[in-house]
Amino acid sequence: MSGSTYGNIFKIMTWGESHGSGVGVVIDGCPSGLPLCEKDIQDFLDRRKPGQSKFTTKRNESDQVEILSGVFEGVTTGTPISLMVRNQDQHSKDYGNLASIYRPGHADYTFEQKYGHRDYRGGGRSSGRETIGRVAAGAIASKILSTLGIQICTYTKAIGPVVIEPSDYHFEQIYENKLYMPNNEAAQKAGAYLSDLMKTLDSSGGSIECVITHMPVGIGETVFDKLDASLAKAIMSIGAVKAFEIGDGFEAASTIGSKNNDAFTVKNGKIEKETNHSGGILGGMSDGSPIILRAHIKPTPSISQEQHTVTKDAEPTSITIHGRHDPVIVPRAVVVVESMAAITLVDLLFQNMNSQMDGVVKFYED
Amino acid sequence: MSGSTYGNIFKIMTWGESHGSGVGVVIDGCPSGLPLCEKDIQDFLDRRKPGQSKFTTKRNESDQVEILSGVFEGVTTGTPISLMVRNQDQHSKDYGNLASIYRPGHADYTFEQKYGHRDYRGGGRSSGRETIGRVAAGAIASKILSTLGIQICTYTKAIGPVVIEPSDYHFEQIYENKLYMPNNEAAQKAGAYLSDLMKTLDSSGGSIECVITHMPVGIGETVFDKLDASLAKAIMSIGAVKAFEIGDGFEAASTIGSKNNDAFTVKNGKIEKETNHSGGILGGMSDGSPIILRAHIKPTPSISQEQHTVTKDAEPTSITIHGRHDPVIVPRAVVVVESMAAITLVDLLFQNMNSQMDGVVKFYED
Amino acid sequence: MSGSTYGNIFKIMTWGESHGSGVGVVIDGCPSGLPLCEKDIQDFLDRRKPGQSKFTTKRNESDQVEILSGVFEGVTTGTPISLMVRNQDQHSKDYGNLASIYRPGHADYTFEQKYGHRDYRGGGRSSGRETIGRVAAGAIASKILSTLGIQICTYTKAIGPVVIEPSDYHFEQIYENKLYMPNNEAAQKAGAYLSDLMKTLDSSGGSIECVITHMPVGIGETVFDKLDASLAKAIMSIGAVKAFEIGDGFEAASTIGSKNNDAFTVKNGKIEKETNHSGGILGGMSDGSPIILRAHIKPTPSISQEQHTVTKDAEPTSITIHGRHDPVIVPRAVVVVESMAAITLVDLLFQNMNSQMDGVVKFYED
Amino acid sequence: MSGSTYGNIFKIMTWGESHGSGVGVVIDGCPSGLPLCEKDIQDFLDRRKPGQSKFTTKRNESDQVEILSGVFEGVTTGTPISLMVRNQDQHSKDYGNLASIYRPGHADYTFEQKYGHRDYRGGGRSSGRETIGRVAAGAIASKILSTLGIQICTYTKAIGPVVIEPSDYHFEQIYENKLYMPNNEAAQKAGAYLSDLMKTLDSSGGSIECVITHMPVGIGETVFDKLDASLAKAIMSIGAVKAFEIGDGFEAASTIGSKNNDAFTVKNGKIEKETNHSGGILGGMSDGSPIILRAHIKPTPSISQEQHTVTKDAEPTSITIHGRHDPVIVPRAVVVVESMAAITLVDLLFQNMNSQMDGVVKFYED
Repeated sequence: MSGSTYGNIFKIMTWGESHGSGVGVVIDGCPSGLPLCEKDIQDFLDRRKPGQSKFTTKRNESDQVEILSGVFEGVTTGTPISLMVRNQDQHSKDYGNLASIYRPGHADYTFEQKYGHRDYRGGGRSSGRETIGRVAAGAIASKILSTLGIQICTYTKAIGPVVIEPSDYHFEQIYENKLYMPNNEAAQKAGAYLSDLMKTLDSSGGSIECVITHMPVGIGETVFDKLDASLAKAIMSIGAVKAFEIGDGFEAASTIGSKNNDAFTVKNGKIEKETNHSGGILGGMSDGSPIILRAHIKPTPSISQEQHTVTKDAEPTSITIHGRHDPVIVPRAVVVVESMAAITLVDLLFQNMNSQMDGVVKFYED
Repeated sequence: MSGSTYGNIFKIMTWGESHGSGVGVVIDGCPSGLPLCEKDIQDFLDRRKPGQSKFTTKRNESDQVEILSGVFEGVTTGTPISLMVRNQDQHSKDYGNLASIYRPGHADYTFEQKYGHRDYRGGGRSSGRETIGRVAAGAIASKILSTLGIQICTYTKAIGPVVIEPSDYHFEQIYENKLYMPNNEAAQKAGAYLSDLMKTLDSSGGSIECVITHMPVGIGETVFDKLDASLAKAIMSIGAVKAFEIGDGFEAASTIGSKNNDAFTVKNGKIEKETNHSGGILGGMSDGSPIILRAHIKPTPSISQEQHTVTKDAEPTSITIHGRHDPVIVPRAVVVVESMAAITLVDLLFQNMNSQMDGVVKFYED
Repeated sequence: MSGSTYGNIFKIMTWGESHGSGVGVVIDGCPSGLPLCEKDIQDFLDRRKPGQSKFTTKRNESDQVEILSGVFEGVTTGTPISLMVRNQDQHSKDYGNLASIYRPGHADYTFEQKYGHRDYRGGGRSSGRETIGRVAAGAIASKILSTLGIQICTYTKAIGPVVIEPSDYHFEQIYENKLYMPNNEAAQKAGAYLSDLMKTLDSSGGSIECVITHMPVGIGETVFDKLDASLAKAIMSIGAVKAFEIGDGFEAASTIGSKNNDAFTVKNGKIEKETNHSGGILGGMSDGSPIILRAHIKPTPSISQEQHTVTKDAEPTSITIHGRHDPVIVPRAVVVVESMAAITLVDLLFQNMNSQMDGVVKFYED
Repeated sequence: MSGSTYGNIFKIMTWGESHGSGVGVVIDGCPSGLPLCEKDIQDFLDRRKPGQSKFTTKRNESDQVEILSGVFEGVTTGTPISLMVRNQDQHSKDYGNLASIYRPGHADYTFEQKYGHRDYRGGGRSSGRETIGRVAAGAIASKILSTLGIQICTYTKAIGPVVIEPSDYHFEQIYENKLYMPNNEAAQKAGAYLSDLMKTLDSSGGSIECVITHMPVGIGETVFDKLDASLAKAIMSIGAVKAFEIGDGFEAASTIGSKNNDAFTVKNGKIEKETNHSGGILGGMSDGSPIILRAHIKPTPSISQEQHTVTKDAEPTSITIHGRHDPVIVPRAVVVVESMAAITLVDLLFQNMNSQMDGVVKFYED
């Protein structure tokens, strides 16, 4: 089956392995008339590229994107947009021993069982490089959102025990630290925590929060293709994400109805909610309040400590993973979360356009 | 757009409103040769039906299912299976005032904004009765899983502050209490908590856990249609679910790699994991350990306290919801979670069958 | 796999067997705000019902449709519309011997090979009654088209050797004869031809033509989901259709470019084509001229002559099919062709709405 | 919407314009374990490349394919296979005047109306070069079919008035003439006909036939995703195809049931049909006889005669198309028809694998 395809109307297909010729994505369903150049996409890719700080792998990958189709004279034409990033600086020799040993916490074992044959170099298709296609498509989706006046803000909310509470958010600081945290002080603490972990050859998990504002009301389809359900799939499909929340999320389970319900009110003649426990989604549709989601990410499984494992032939052995690995993937995953959210929102915005007969009639009137 | 359709190969389409003629589902893609009768489905529906205890609404809905197609001489034929439950005991008069007032925590406002015209009686399509179609299809999916030797066990893990830890699980007690909790003592505490809430006209949230055992290794598609991502969408599409976890879930964000990685080992000549922090999923594919997921559910929004809200015409008002409502929906949602998981697993098991050329060749050999 | 689902945005799932409880369809993706009542659908169903003339089977099926969901106070709500027709007057005894014998020209053999278990009564799922779901959904699609000012006209162009040339079309006569031919004289000839065939226990093929006018220009998606390709699938999916044409169709193969190209011209300030060899479609998109398609249908395979065939156990035998069968199915298939065309057009009209960024921006502006 | 995506399980997304950076395809859903190298694909591409004879455009495009992903050590891994052909030898200057003039018989006008902005150079996305992606994917599908013992044979049946009857087929001659006709003498006549047309700056239509043998019985899904309906969409989605037939096709409309029905018989203990009017498909499923389909193709619209047309601003004008164009596209389209058929068959073969519960159980047994 085809698991690398996503979206119903704004549809993407990603491809590529860590140590193959390259990675990329084709976007089928982008409207014509959107100004688009390689820099739009490169800016997004640069937010996930390695080597940004001492906490990200030092691989020298420039990850230059090339637009192969779908754009003419700087504007999209409505035809598929093919984007490619050539791989370079692959040290395939680093990975030779992985052909027959399964790394704990990685997809080696499950991939081998499913397919019987795999490109083991650098995780192959299960490598973090797979997300380049998502981010490249996300850059385009974000540009569409921004054209519609919708904003997305994504940041690192927690790294290991260092969690930033909303009262301490300083959104202007997100890009002032290498960890994309909305609080420079917390970022410093997290940095110290990571430095300690690096000394013990260990790694950390963390959490990412994403806030979407100015969404029209009513986006999301009823029953199965709800906005929250669609976002859940989008975000949980990112490798290493183990939990997903909307609004009060996890805490909603331990509270009571009178506290959790958001009263409706009228401000400046418009209907609004007094609070936002719902995280901007009611009945699977956007409710006009900011949409708030969180992704919780496990620690990088690639650690340089010796670990117990087995070989392909079911022989017990141990493995010490060398090579260059991030002690935490959360900062680089921020733009991946934002991209997947953006792609999902665009797809649901497009799906919403034929909800009412009136809207259809108006569209086709001269 | 069509939001009431789910699945790629084992595909379902649900329909129906709370106070219309009935609710139902069509399953397109069920293999032929599965023994199936109405009792198989009724047993599942009875687990979600109202009136099971004093904590569930007292509506006298017998919810009798009728198989309309797809089964001949007690066995499926491979053609669409249409299942219908007629509505009855609808007190439409209870809902008259809801035509023009938006209930807090409900889909009234967003539905009205999206569609401009809605069946406001009992929440219409956004009613909990919508889940009857899911559960009816889930009964069939569960029978397929069971034919393949795969088991699902689902239960209430928490109601409000009453949380059961794994060390206190007694799975044989799940069906001994009306709350479907794997610990009768905890169920008693939860019952007392709910009784108190009912006195204050309030409601409670809670959590459901689902454990799937004996899954073949390698189920789930890479990249977007990962097993965990697909389960996330399935579960988050159930109304009132606000958070979703796989395995260690949220806690993975605050731990370190050396603790979170599950070492591989060999038992009786077979590869297994020493621990199961991953919750049975690696790289988006089943890894042979039990799959563990949790759904966190908000308190029932229908409470009989007076609440601030607005009218359709953006006039502030207040509302007191009368009628029969569960102080907690978690126990009745247990079978809904199980159904959505089952449907998702069957779909991914079918999708997996052409993963390897060898499997395809063997299938088509005489 | 799920073969009874059709459409991307305006999505339908049909169900039911000839001699089961009933047949029906669920439409997921119909916009809200469309006035709809059972008569709208019944009028369409009556055009395909048996017993209209001596050339159609005399089964006394009233085929009364029931709207089960998706309509509130006479107007669609945007939720799935479930439509059901109960079966009645099934003479299951007529079909007993078909359990183990394969009728020539029918799906008995292939169905048995594919599924291993089948409802053999009256062809089961492969019966012509399967089209009731298509026509019920087609009635709704037609109402959407008509709201947008688009017209469809469908008629019998040929029965056996009686072919009506465009110069002899009298569209006002289509409903004046039982064969739905746009020429009463031809209908009379065709009637005589059919009467003769009935005497020799034989059956006839024929052709249906469908003309769609006032389509907006540019409907149809590039490459695979072209308007003509989509219509081809829609029409060829109707049982017994063996060939499909757009515009000049077959004849285009034997002509030359200078004759086949339609020159563009300007009429009343609007771009038009001087001729319409293209049948209203250029590059897979509607070009503003009438869309013209033809379906060519094989003779009814159920004939009462003795025929050679085999049993389930591969024993040669012969079969004489009794019961009530149409000597030609073409007249009753006219509304099926129209329905499938209408469903396809609506789906593509909806798909077209996000082709241009300008259209999306305008839609979401206040 | 996304019209460049095709297939449900074996899914492809094609991209690229005539004069952009290149053209390509991503295949998502190819099983692992298939030996695959660039030569496999190149051999297919070479059958459609220009410059093969004086009847095909003389553009010097080598059309070298590059496999970018999904293959490791010469064998597919089950991950997306990305294939790219760089464009070269584009004489963009040839097309400058087409920015504002609509060529008769081309997609210029409809594309402009749909998208508002288009790459007019060489037809952009509507160019024949779009089929490179189809053929590249078709090469892989064909290799899968051949692994399963299924054969496809495709050839030119007619060019203009030169039609080859089945009694004159000499399949061994197909590759002996540049027109891929199964009769060298007919090919010579067709060549003479084309030479004459070239002198008058005109072009010819023609017909392609495709025969598939050794298909398992029962492939194709009931109702909408029938084998014939799916093939119809596949073939009609190829630019310039105006009609499609299965088996007796068009002629079935004028015949009678007793002649059209294929009697079943037993040969060597196996069920077979005595004749094959059905073209190998009954009830939308393969019936064991050879599957026979025909595509009827219009004359190349690019002719060098002066033609009436209009400008973008609705001003009447005339156009004389210069540049290099095939007087007939049929011979180069042979491999495109074969490719689309192969892709469709593979997708339906995969879809069929979960038709019976027995097959599923056997697959998952150890």
